[in-house]
Order: sequence, then C-alpha cells, then structure tokens
Amino acid sequence: MAKQEDVFKKVISHAKEYGFIFPSSEIYDGLSAIYDYGQNGAELKNNIKQYWWKAMVQLNENIVGIDSAIFMHPTIWKASGHVDAFNDPLIDNKDSKKRFRADVLIEDYCAKIEDKENKEIEKAAKRFGDAFDKAEFEATNPRVLEYRAKRAAILTRMAKSLENEDLADVKSLIEELEIADPDTGSKNWTEVRQFNLMFGTKLGASADTATDLYLRPETAQGIFVNYLNVQKTSRHKLPFGIAQIGKAFRNEIVARQFIFRMREFEQMEMQYFVAPGTELEFYEKWKQTRLKWHLALGLGEDNYRFHDHEKLAHYANAAADIEFNFPFGFKELEGIHSRTDFDLKAHEKFSGRKLQYFDPERNENYVPYVVETSVGLDRLFLALFSTCLKDEVLEDGSERTVLSLPPALAPVKAAILPLMKKDGLAEYAETIFNDLKYDFNLFYEEKDAIGKRYRRQDAIGTPLCITIDHDSLVDNTVTIRDRDTMKQERVPVADLRRIIDEKTSFRNLLAKI
Amino acid sequence: MAKQEDVFKKVISHAKEYGFIFPSSEIYDGLSAIYDYGQNGAELKNNIKQYWWKAMVQLNENIVGIDSAIFMHPTIWKASGHVDAFNDPLIDNKDSKKRFRADVLIEDYCAKIEDKENKEIEKAAKRFGDAFDKAEFEATNPRVLEYRAKRAAILTRMAKSLENEDLADVKSLIEELEIADPDTGSKNWTEVRQFNLMFGTKLGASADTATDLYLRPETAQGIFVNYLNVQKTSRHKLPFGIAQIGKAFRNEIVARQFIFRMREFEQMEMQYFVAPGTELEFYEKWKQTRLKWHLALGLGEDNYRFHDHEKLAHYANAAADIEFNFPFGFKELEGIHSRTDFDLKAHEKFSGRKLQYFDPERNENYVPYVVETSVGLDRLFLALFSTCLKDEVLEDGSERTVLSLPPALAPVKAAILPLMKKDGLAEYAETIFNDLKYDFNLFYEEKDAIGKRYRRQDAIGTPLCITIDHDSLVDNTVTIRDRDTMKQERVPVADLRRIIDEKTSFRNLLAKI
Repeated sequence: MAKQEDVFKKVISHAKEYGFIFPSSEIYDGLSAIYDYGQNGAELKNNIKQYWWKAMVQLNENIVGIDSAIFMHPTIWKASGHVDAFNDPLIDNKDSKKRFRADVLIEDYCAKIEDKENKEIEKAAKRFGDAFDKAEFEATNPRVLEYRAKRAAILTRMAKSLENEDLADVKSLIEELEIADPDTGSKNWTEVRQFNLMFGTKLGASADTATDLYLRPETAQGIFVNYLNVQKTSRHKLPFGIAQIGKAFRNEIVARQFIFRMREFEQMEMQYFVAPGTELEFYEKWKQTRLKWHLALGLGEDNYRFHDHEKLAHYANAAADIEFNFPFGFKELEGIHSRTDFDLKAHEKFSGRKLQYFDPERNENYVPYVVETSVGLDRLFLALFSTCLKDEVLEDGSERTVLSLPPALAPVKAAILPLMKKDGLAEYAETIFNDLKYDFNLFYEEKDAIGKRYRRQDAIGTPLCITIDHDSLVDNTVTIRDRDTMKQERVPVADLRRIIDEKTSFRNLLAKI
Repeated sequence: MAKQEDVFKKVISHAKEYGFIFPSSEIYDGLSAIYDYGQNGAELKNNIKQYWWKAMVQLNENIVGIDSAIFMHPTIWKASGHVDAFNDPLIDNKDSKKRFRADVLIEDYCAKIEDKENKEIEKAAKRFGDAFDKAEFEATNPRVLEYRAKRAAILTRMAKSLENEDLADVKSLIEELEIADPDTGSKNWTEVRQFNLMFGTKLGASADTATDLYLRPETAQGIFVNYLNVQKTSRHKLPFGIAQIGKAFRNEIVARQFIFRMREFEQMEMQYFVAPGTELEFYEKWKQTRLKWHLALGLGEDNYRFHDHEKLAHYANAAADIEFNFPFGFKELEGIHSRTDFDLKAHEKFSGRKLQYFDPERNENYVPYVVETSVGLDRLFLALFSTCLKDEVLEDGSERTVLSLPPALAPVKAAILPLMKKDGLAEYAETIFNDLKYDFNLFYEEKDAIGKRYRRQDAIGTPLCITIDHDSLVDNTVTIRDRDTMKQERVPVADLRRIIDEKTSFRNLLAKI
C-alpha cells in the first residue's frame, strides 16, 4: 500500500515536471480537482482522442462522429433523470462546519477495516514464509473472517438505505459506527441530504426571462437528442453508431485521486442504435471489442478486468465496467451499458416528438435500443501515464526514468539532436527537421551533453532520437536511438521518414483491434 | 442584399440537410445561439483544428500547445479586467418588456441610413449607365454626404459615451433619434445599464463555502497563468509561443448570424512571448504569417482584408483584425494583438507571484511582452462552408451543388462505391475499403444510381469517388472521379493509397504557408 502511494506521488510529480499536467490556476493556489494539460500532456491527450476516433469512426463504416454543445435545453436533464436522481448524499459536521459525502465516510471506515485485515495477512505471510497458503489463511483465519463479515454488513446496509432513499438510516449508520470528522474528531453531525451534482448557470440577461441551464454531466444525451437528425442525413440503417468526444462537468464533493475524478473532465462515448431484441448480442460484442482496443495499447492483460454490474441503473438491462489497475487499485476505466430504449422514450415523452426509426426489413416503426461504450479520457491518460512510467537500472549500474508510451501516442515522435551547435551540425539538423516536420511532431535541441538529452526524451516518451554528427555531413547518415532498447543504429537520412512512420504510425495500434 | 440573404439561407439549410450543423436541442425547439456539429461538421471542424495545430505547433519548433480547463480561479477574471469591464450596455422597453443592446439599436438605426445612401447611389448608377463615376458621385452628391455625416456623428457620439461610461447620454441619443422597439414601435425605454457577459456557476456544495466561478470568456488567460510552468518544463527561450484550442462562453444578448456569434464557441489562440521592445516586429510578422495561413485555403485573396484598430483596447499597443467576406459582409475572422505585458503584470499583481523570465543574452529579468493571434474556429468553419458551397450549371444543362472544400479538410476523403451490390462487386469494394480505412476517412455506399451517389458526395465535399465495376474484378482497376473537374480516370487499385494521399494530405496546405 505504501509503495503504491509512492508510485502515485511519482506519477503526479513527473507529470508536472515534464509538462504533462499542471494544477489549474496554480499561481492562484489552484482550483480543487481541476487540472490543465501542459505541452506534452496536450499532445498525448490529442493522440488518445485520435486513436479512439480512428478506431470507432474511421474503421467502422456504420459509425459517425458528432460534436454537440455543452449547453443543452434544460428539459433534457429532466428527461434523462439527472434533475431528480443525479445526487450525492451529503452530511455536515456541526462543529467543524465541514461537508462530507456520507457514503465516502462509511467507505473510508470500511477501508480502515480492510487495512487491518491486510496487516493480519502480511503478518502471517512473514511468519510462515514459503509455507504460507494465502487462500487457505483468508478462508479460515477468524480475525480475517470477522473483518470481512463486518465490512460486508456495513456496505450492504448502506447500499440498501441509499437505494431506498432512507437517508435517516445512513445517518444512523454513521452514528452507530462512531465515525468522526477526520480532521477534528467531532461526531456532531447534521442530517444526511441529497445534493445534485450538476453545475447550473443562467442564459440570457433578464432576471425574468433568463433560462436556467446546466453544464452537461455526460455527453451521451447530446447524441440521443441528435440521433434522428444524424440517421436521416447520413442515411444509415440500423445498426449504426454515433460517437462523440467532449467535456462534461460534475460538482463532485469529494474529488480526488489526481485526474481520476475531476469536476471538469472529458468523455469518449459511442451510442450504438440497434433493433429491439438484438441489444444483448451487440452488448457482448462491444464488451469484447472495447477490451481488445485497450489491450492493443500493450499495458498488460493483467491490468484489466471486467466488472459485471449486479445492480443495474434504471435505464439498463445489462452493464459492465472495464476496470484498470490504477496506482490506487482496480477502478472503472470504461463502461459498456445496454441502455434499452429508456433515453429515447423519455425524450419522446418530454419533447413530444416521435423518435422512431422505420425498419425496412421488419417493415415496422420502433424506437431503437441503445448499447453505449463510454470511456473516461482523463482516466485513460492516467492509466497510460502511470503504467508506462518506469525507473530502470541499466547494465552499467546507472538509472533512467522512461515513459514507455505506445509510439503512436507519444507527444514527440522523434527528437532531432545535433551533437553540437557548431561546424554546421545545427544547420544540417535543421534541414532534417524542416523536411520531416510536415509529417511528424518533432523536438529540436542542440544544447547539453547528448546523454542528458536522451534522458529528457526518455522521460517524455519520445520513441526515437536522431543524432547528427560530423560523419553525417560527409555521408548523409545519422544515428537513430530506440527509446526502449536504447540501441543505436546508423541509417541514411533518406530513410528517416519511412523509419519514423513505421515506428509511430497509428496503423500499428489499429491493426491489432 | 437580398441575394446575400438568400445565399445565407442556403448555407444554413445545406448545413443541416447534409449533417454539418444542427440547431442544438432541436427536438426541444432549440436553444438560442447554440449549435451542434453533425457527422460531417464534426469531421470538418476536427480537420480545421488539425490544420491550425500542425501549422502552429508542429511546424514551429518554438511553439508548443496546451489544453487548460474551462474552470479557472475567479481572481483571474478580476486580473484580466473581465469582471469590471466585459460588459454590454442594455436597455429595456417598458411596454414590450423586451431587452436590447443599446449600442445595437443605435447601429441598426445607422444601418438604415446607410441603406438609403446605397439606394441613392444605385439610382444614380442606373440613370448614368456607363458614364457613372461612383467615386465622384459619392464625394459630391449632397444627399449622400448628408447621410454619411449623420452616421458619423451618431457613431462617434455613441463610442465616446460608451468609453466614458456615460450611459445616460446613450439613452439620450436613443431618445433624440426616436428609436423605437422594432417589434412594437414603443419608445418607452428604461435607463441603460451594463451587463456582464460572463456565465457564472458555483463550485462546491455548501452555500457558505461554494466558490463563484465563471465559464472562461476567452482561452488566452489559460495560457498566461501557465506560461511559466510551460517555459520552465519545455526549457524554451524567448521568443516562444503557446497555442491552445478550446471552448469559450459569452452570454451575448443579441447572438445572431448562425454560428458567427454563438454563446458557446471555440477559439484557436496562440500567445507569443517576446522580449520588451521587440513586440511590434513580431506583431507585423504574425499578421503576415496568419494571412498566409488563411490564403493557403484557396478561398480567394479578395475575400480577406486587414482592419487595423485605431482605438486600442486597454491592454494593447497595436491590433488588427483579419476580416473575411462572409455572406453578411466583411467581419472579423481573426485578431492579431500586441498585448504588451498587461496580462502577465496583472497576474503578478493579483496572484502575488513573480512571472519574470531570465534572459541569458540580456542578462536580466523581465516580464515578457505578448503578441496574440486568435481565430474563431466556428467563424472559420462558416467562412469555408459559405464560400465553398456552389450551385453549378453543367455542360449538359443539368445542375449540381458542390462543396469545394480544400481536400485536406473534407470530412470524407474518398467514397467507395460499387456500381451494384451483386456479382461480387460489393465484396470487392469492401476489400478496398478495409485496406484503405486505416489511412483515410472513407464513405461506403452501394445503393442508388451512381450519378445520384456522386451528387451526394459533391454536396458534402468528398474530393474523390472510387467506383468499382465488373471490369474491376478482372483487371484490378477502378474508376476514380474528381469532385471539381468531374473527370473520371481508370487507375489500378494498387495506386489508390498514393493517389488519395497526394490529393488529400495536409502537406498540400502546409507547404503553402
């Protein structure tokens, strides 16, 4: 656990030090749970978007992409259920005047029990050494069993109370467990109440005529309300999909874990419109397709697992998460949901417009069913960044930090490095830069020892370093260094475009899906 | 004038009919001055972004891109002047209860005078025929001179009153000119008052501790507050630039002209940080560079003009617009501003942090000066779309509508069209599609007469149509049709990748800048 925390700290500091992620408004002491992407982060983020867009829209002739606005008609959020049900249970401490998520207080309490449980297991592992059978110990040790039963009982009761909107029982649970304000120790709590997570604003100037708007808490509804416009103008038959990448906003009370849970974040969502009765078949297909898309990134199969939802949201008849092994454990990275016709039917009801599709094969009109795939762009960024960031001890005993991103996603594809500025090396290097820059994002640097420059490129994940030396002027060859193997090879300048393209093309990823 | 209005109507209806732009939340009767980009609009918009990003970031080794959040610390907007000065003068009609921008009412009044003036000129032109000397007539005709003097006097007085915040005089002007509510004719006006254009929202749940936030009204400040983080982590020396593409929000009272002035819109901004005293040299350079970037799109030199600002904003020591000839006349498309050290100095003052740069050549610390280039992404979309949309009469007397977008920006690069579905043509076409789809955004269609399918591709601007017929199965050749010349050529399937790439690559645009 302590080690994971260290890894996470290293991720956050490396992200800042190398221009990937800065705390937002940092010179004004920051803005909680908001982050800015720096010069390397913006490139990595754009490349992730491109990988997704190409895989969803470009490779599938029956999927198109749209870009709908953040501002939408307020009734849309009534229809989607967000006005009534998109809430967090909050509780205030009367002494400290601090506000908490009631469910998080209880979950934190359970996490402490889990810590104790893990300590028991560790202790036993130490005591028994090689003879330790972890599975057997967990299944039989009375203390471990007791901890587990306690946790299960608490979490089940909380889930049930929240589902039944029995907020008084959530408060009772906090009191029975004697949970205190973590900062002050006070147990003087208010009632628990629901708080809506949507950000509100007002459109228009007049107090009487201004419209109350929300910043969209998800991009999906922008697809639903446009589905018929898209279907009619694109002339696609079912099944067909609409993809979208865009910002969404949630007024999270407890936003934490760096860019994992932000108040302003970005989603990559695809809604697949299908004939009623065929949705579960497509749901299974998309589960597998999306997992394959993730696996193509090469972060390791063991870092992914499916979590099939047992309790389904009101709009779904099947749902699963693709969970990723983040520095703080397995958490949701992408959701695949069979949303039925819930959303479209709700929009029919609230808008008064028919949203039916005429199926020429069945010769009937119906409201399509929808299968959704929804991945958190910032979460995927964090998954990539934290998994690819490695400290390596080299053969000569020296160390290096390398960010082994998939080459197609690397912010810089190749660094152009003249060994020194003088003797015409810089001029020659610039010729190479100016020839290749139309096709690749490059980095140019002529200062510092070459080893130091290699290390800086390793740290931002640049797959190839191209070094120009005195021989280059004579025979038009350069040294090309591979980020991962650190092997150096002499190649003709005329081959560089092909070599960089073969190494960094999106085709390398897309061909694996 | 009437003709221009017709052109504009055609632009709006074509944009909807072919999946470029839909009114936002249309099934809920729309949301004023908000639009969604459909399947072809999203691709065109993404391609415009890429053209800008490649030209600014990829081609310039000293410019990097970032992606800062929409939510920023509220004090930032105090420092930038937006809290105090980002206002529109509003006036209410007491009878109709409608709200207007006072300056727009006055400008509309002057536009009517200009209409009369233009009618005088047209009348004279008709009367004198070939002998008509427009310049001389305008310089001597007493009616024209009177109209011009009147307009000038009104606009000068208004500008002065607004500058001096003398809102009472703005009201007097409206009363003296006897301006009435255009709908009801009522002249019963309230006082004029300032209305801030920023959208507000609240971060956090507690009424006492919630932070009042604004949705950013421009992306530039996200660059300023990050400039030192970027400079330090990228190790760039001055001059260097930071580029950004992102959403901004303005609560416009009178938002109109389709996507020209929206409440939610997107900017592509670059801030170039330079040594004090060198800013005007870079300002001139960027004016020319940016114009060249626009001209590379091939919309015609005559459609652009510079408008140098005579009155400068409080932060600028030089400023110009690149204006474009929109369907409703020449209007601002991009702004180039020499912003001095105003913003960085203001952030030093309000944040209490030093924002100085150490210049190793001058051996001194200073706050950099800034030259900004800022283009409205949606406006550029409209410029492209409205100029490229053409109705053509063909040699055989038939008509076609063609969207002659620069091929690199076209939503679909090539359409794969089997002449018919049967006889294995569809299967063969799909092989071609599946081979090329990794490199290009393609469209596949196997239904309807081929001429009809060509027309639909013309209407969305697809540069190339590839038709597969029975001969294709025999000799592995296809017919490739050019959107602009409509010429058809027989080419080997093996050459398609090269042909499409040569036609649609971004290199074609970038090489012209």
